[in-house]
Amino acid sequence: MSRTIAYIVCLIAGMAYSIARAEGPEKEDFRPSTVNQPGKEYPQVNSGGKVRVQVAAPDAKYVQLDIGGVKYDLTRDETGVWSGESAPQEEGFHYYQLNIDGASVPDPGTRYFYGAGRWGSGIEIPAHDQDFYTLKNVPHGLVSEMNYYSDITRKWRRCFVYTPPCYEAEADKRYPVLYLQHGSFEDETGWTGQGKAGLILDNLIAERKARPMIIVMDNGYAFRPEEEQAVSDPTRPAMVFEEVMINEIVPMIDRRFRTLNHRESRAIAGLSMGANQTMRIIMNNLDTFAWYGGFSGTANYPSAAEIDAETFLGGVFKEGDRINGQIRALWLGVGTTEPEVFPQSIGAFRNMLKRQGIDHTFYESPGTAHEWLTWRRSLYQFAQLLFQ
Amino acid sequence: MSRTIAYIVCLIAGMAYSIARAEGPEKEDFRPSTVNQPGKEYPQVNSGGKVRVQVAAPDAKYVQLDIGGVKYDLTRDETGVWSGESAPQEEGFHYYQLNIDGASVPDPGTRYFYGAGRWGSGIEIPAHDQDFYTLKNVPHGLVSEMNYYSDITRKWRRCFVYTPPCYEAEADKRYPVLYLQHGSFEDETGWTGQGKAGLILDNLIAERKARPMIIVMDNGYAFRPEEEQAVSDPTRPAMVFEEVMINEIVPMIDRRFRTLNHRESRAIAGLSMGANQTMRIIMNNLDTFAWYGGFSGTANYPSAAEIDAETFLGGVFKEGDRINGQIRALWLGVGTTEPEVFPQSIGAFRNMLKRQGIDHTFYESPGTAHEWLTWRRSLYQFAQLLFQ
Repeated sequence: MSRTIAYIVCLIAGMAYSIARAEGPEKEDFRPSTVNQPGKEYPQVNSGGKVRVQVAAPDAKYVQLDIGGVKYDLTRDETGVWSGESAPQEEGFHYYQLNIDGASVPDPGTRYFYGAGRWGSGIEIPAHDQDFYTLKNVPHGLVSEMNYYSDITRKWRRCFVYTPPCYEAEADKRYPVLYLQHGSFEDETGWTGQGKAGLILDNLIAERKARPMIIVMDNGYAFRPEEEQAVSDPTRPAMVFEEVMINEIVPMIDRRFRTLNHRESRAIAGLSMGANQTMRIIMNNLDTFAWYGGFSGTANYPSAAEIDAETFLGGVFKEGDRINGQIRALWLGVGTTEPEVFPQSIGAFRNMLKRQGIDHTFYESPGTAHEWLTWRRSLYQFAQLLFQ
Repeated sequence: MSRTIAYIVCLIAGMAYSIARAEGPEKEDFRPSTVNQPGKEYPQVNSGGKVRVQVAAPDAKYVQLDIGGVKYDLTRDETGVWSGESAPQEEGFHYYQLNIDGASVPDPGTRYFYGAGRWGSGIEIPAHDQDFYTLKNVPHGLVSEMNYYSDITRKWRRCFVYTPPCYEAEADKRYPVLYLQHGSFEDETGWTGQGKAGLILDNLIAERKARPMIIVMDNGYAFRPEEEQAVSDPTRPAMVFEEVMINEIVPMIDRRFRTLNHRESRAIAGLSMGANQTMRIIMNNLDTFAWYGGFSGTANYPSAAEIDAETFLGGVFKEGDRINGQIRALWLGVGTTEPEVFPQSIGAFRNMLKRQGIDHTFYESPGTAHEWLTWRRSLYQFAQLLFQ
């Protein structure tokens, strides 16, 4: 028996050693992140998902890498350059910052992205399935920046509009439109920046897996002048944005672009807060939209309680058959490692759909959290169903 | 006599006191910079052009504001927040950074711009003539981001394309094109970001002061794979970019957009390094372009020596009459407070033009340096002459 135990101990120790070795020298394969500024060597990422940063701060007492809710201490070399690594991060895109003697600042090595309520650093942990959002030698659509004045909010607003690669050449053709919304503390730049929406559609269209479509990405924060506030309440986010969408954005896009101007050719989708907002918008405006995508969110968020279809959102899901006839696709997605509140509230919502006999598609993104890789994959899946 | 001196001393002291008072309380009118991140109170600018920054860095030994080549020490309050001001800055746009215990980092309060070879902080000192680039309730063009693969550089490249407000509605109309280039250590984002090219044209077109036109803004750094280098030599910048422009960019734009596809409807202009590059490009390609704008630069930069037209750029300016017949406008601009090398080299170039009897327009931007307000004003002036 003791020999057996000793054998097992040795076996485990040997395995542990092998694993340690495999994780040691073999992971000294750090490369500059793909979203670094031109010519910048740091930050770097290795095949194990670790992030290594480096910054010159000769007179600092301490410097930390602040990523994924954890602060990692960096160490100083004799020249005043600080370096260090994070624990392995999940594949996909992550916001992060540096902490220099208590100052939270962007890493001067990266390009900057709007998320977490600020323009700050981002890093890409290469995903095993990154091919679907990689910049490839296929025809590319254009992403146009469009400024417009909103009479409802009495402010200048901005949207980005993706037009498919064939849009200019096929000058008489009209296209369906997907209205695609960001999450809380993000803005209209999210889907084309860290979301890679344009590249995802370029690749899908090149492979004939998605219909050429227009995508409109606007800013989900909208307030009347008298109710202006810095951030929206993520549990009640729709607010005046629904009015801006229906009365200002949709008509403006239909005037300016060659759209197919009817509900069967209009989809609306969003992530997290945007999923919540867009679900309310489509259910209040079934004459305008016929396709819905909810990425990591539903309108019952953050509640996990069973939903009463008689009362939820004013009873719009009460008549399941009617909904099945009106909504061409009701698509829901979530990452398998998201905080419990997301699968739980989406689960409660799906239970209601099932009780009402409402058709829907449910997608789980393997191994991704409440992060952009979940949403890139969700768009990739959802776009293939759209307008078919 | 001593009474007179005493009187004068009192008078001067009184005046100095009045001036000090006038510069003191009256300039406590700091406001958030117009290019701050949403909701950020700092940095601020006052009517005297001073920049005030504020950053929390509780454990820092020192924090400095680094702007216009000068570092200003900030002072710490009891909560660890550092604040301080610069000397008055010239009106217009300036890049800057913070120095926290020796680390040069972006200010977390601002949006970020690519210049000085990095994405970093920028600040707007409101200009007395800012109306011409202000976002106003006039029809707005679109600015489209376009990715393309260059066979010459064997790299992905990007350009931004401004299309005028009427472009979508007048679907059969074709438009002249201005190719507009950034300066050294800048990139294709400069003209629509800090340059405000889109807003300048929107406003000019709304006032019928400029013809509706397409503007293409590309990246002036281009290298063959075998000659790749981090930055170009600003005294010999054209290099392979000329080949990319003539063989790849112009044909691509003519295929994708509704352009007027002949030399009389094609202009090329640039600032600083871009002025140098584009002057070489037009003089080598007079079959492609007929209009030229050089903002704070010429192809003889940095030399102030008299130019021999027989040999300069292979003698292209030798026959003045022929040049007058071929170039519809040869436009040169410079700021009155630029470093001497700029007016001197431009002066030597103009002397050569005069000796050759070559018509040109010369514009001086009052009180501006080698900075974006000079170039915004240059575009504003130049665009009004174009294609008329």
